[in-house]
Amino acid sequence: MLIVFLGTAGSGKSTLTGEFGKYLETEGYNVAYVNLDTGVRSLIYMPDIDVRESITVDEIMKEGYGPNGAIVESYDRLMEHLEHYSTSIAELERKNDYVLIDTPGQMETFLFHEFGWRIMENLDAPLVVYLFDPGILRRLYDFCFVRFFAILIELRLGSAVVPVLNKIDTVDNLDGYRRYLEDMGSLTSRLKFDPSMQGYLAYKLCLTFPEVASPTRVLYISAKSHRGFEDLESVAHEHYCTCGDLT
Amino acid sequence: MLIVFLGTAGSGKSTLTGEFGKYLETEGYNVAYVNLDTGVRSLIYMPDIDVRESITVDEIMKEGYGPNGAIVESYDRLMEHLEHYSTSIAELERKNDYVLIDTPGQMETFLFHEFGWRIMENLDAPLVVYLFDPGILRRLYDFCFVRFFAILIELRLGSAVVPVLNKIDTVDNLDGYRRYLEDMGSLTSRLKFDPSMQGYLAYKLCLTFPEVASPTRVLYISAKSHRGFEDLESVAHEHYCTCGDLT
Repeated sequence: MLIVFLGTAGSGKSTLTGEFGKYLETEGYNVAYVNLDTGVRSLIYMPDIDVRESITVDEIMKEGYGPNGAIVESYDRLMEHLEHYSTSIAELERKNDYVLIDTPGQMETFLFHEFGWRIMENLDAPLVVYLFDPGILRRLYDFCFVRFFAILIELRLGSAVVPVLNKIDTVDNLDGYRRYLEDMGSLTSRLKFDPSMQGYLAYKLCLTFPEVASPTRVLYISAKSHRGFEDLESVAHEHYCTCGDLT
Repeated sequence: MLIVFLGTAGSGKSTLTGEFGKYLETEGYNVAYVNLDTGVRSLIYMPDIDVRESITVDEIMKEGYGPNGAIVESYDRLMEHLEHYSTSIAELERKNDYVLIDTPGQMETFLFHEFGWRIMENLDAPLVVYLFDPGILRRLYDFCFVRFFAILIELRLGSAVVPVLNKIDTVDNLDGYRRYLEDMGSLTSRLKFDPSMQGYLAYKLCLTFPEVASPTRVLYISAKSHRGFEDLESVAHEHYCTCGDLT
């Protein structure tokens, strides 16, 4: 099974890759790890495949690039190694129960750069775990934003996406988050009375949500405490064993 | 008038900020420039406000952070200067015809970090120019992706958004791009016959597009040759003078 961890810088992709891998190994599975982040300096897991063998952001910065330019340039240069990495990941998959893929620190590098969708189209039905943290859910429309963001990831990468709220160890009112992340009806009714332009846009989007979204659960995890890891394991099984039904 | 240039690293935000500013100055306007990118090393314009006075990614990397962590950390630290920058931008606006705001190199820093929406909510009806380049439009669903991405920017930042295809000097068949960026009906009918899961998702999204999207033109520009700059100027005028009608 291939699981791809995607999210903004700081959302906890690398930590989750390492901790979820540890958990799966304890459960008796063979687990392999892939690092696609050219910018990361240290990892809590030992990658079996590591794009930093081809190029790192630090090396490119030494050529005089600024950090933003160096990140983009590193994926431009990785394009020539695309086939190598695709083939190596496929090999890892044959030999392991799980292959956990950690993506670039900046999510947009994977979503917008050709490297992202090209490598995804070469993989065999990967499941994308879209990580976000409680910090971005401050206003009602932010809930609508993350649900639609997950849809756009699916559209761009062509893979099933599970939205996952990470860092739940940092929140007291998890039920408040669950309510608006899971119950689109409840969110839509609240947004109906929001007089702002943003509220109205969110309302219109939420109304169309049931028509456009693939049915999927939202998961709640803590990479730190391993809370929710069983759910993530179940969803991965459902994805591979029941034809992508993630409800 | 406040114009905010947003797009992924490499989409041409800084070049457009500088070149469009030059164009406006030649037209006789007073123009001020704001740089919100902590990671940029050199700019082709002289910023009147520059967040690098408070903090830079390079400085944070010297503390031992990797490039991704340093980018996030720089905006965490900028949060304490939020009011200062909001007030300074408002002052610039009173003294100038145009204030052009160049955003962080990585678009997600602005879209996902609190710094982004907080500074936007303090500005007076800014117009967001969402820049993307022809390189990301390879497949039919990519056209659907960028049109919906613009909607999600509007949802998150609460401002009117104009989608702008930049770097048109690099393409031969601009009409091919225009067709699917502008004529949602034409895109939808083509997607109807795409048998892939991605095609079906794009089809469903495109069907809902007229219900959810604010009416707006798509612009086609070249920051290099200044092609399309008159259109951008008109749209900015329409935004400020005709209550946000950008059609």
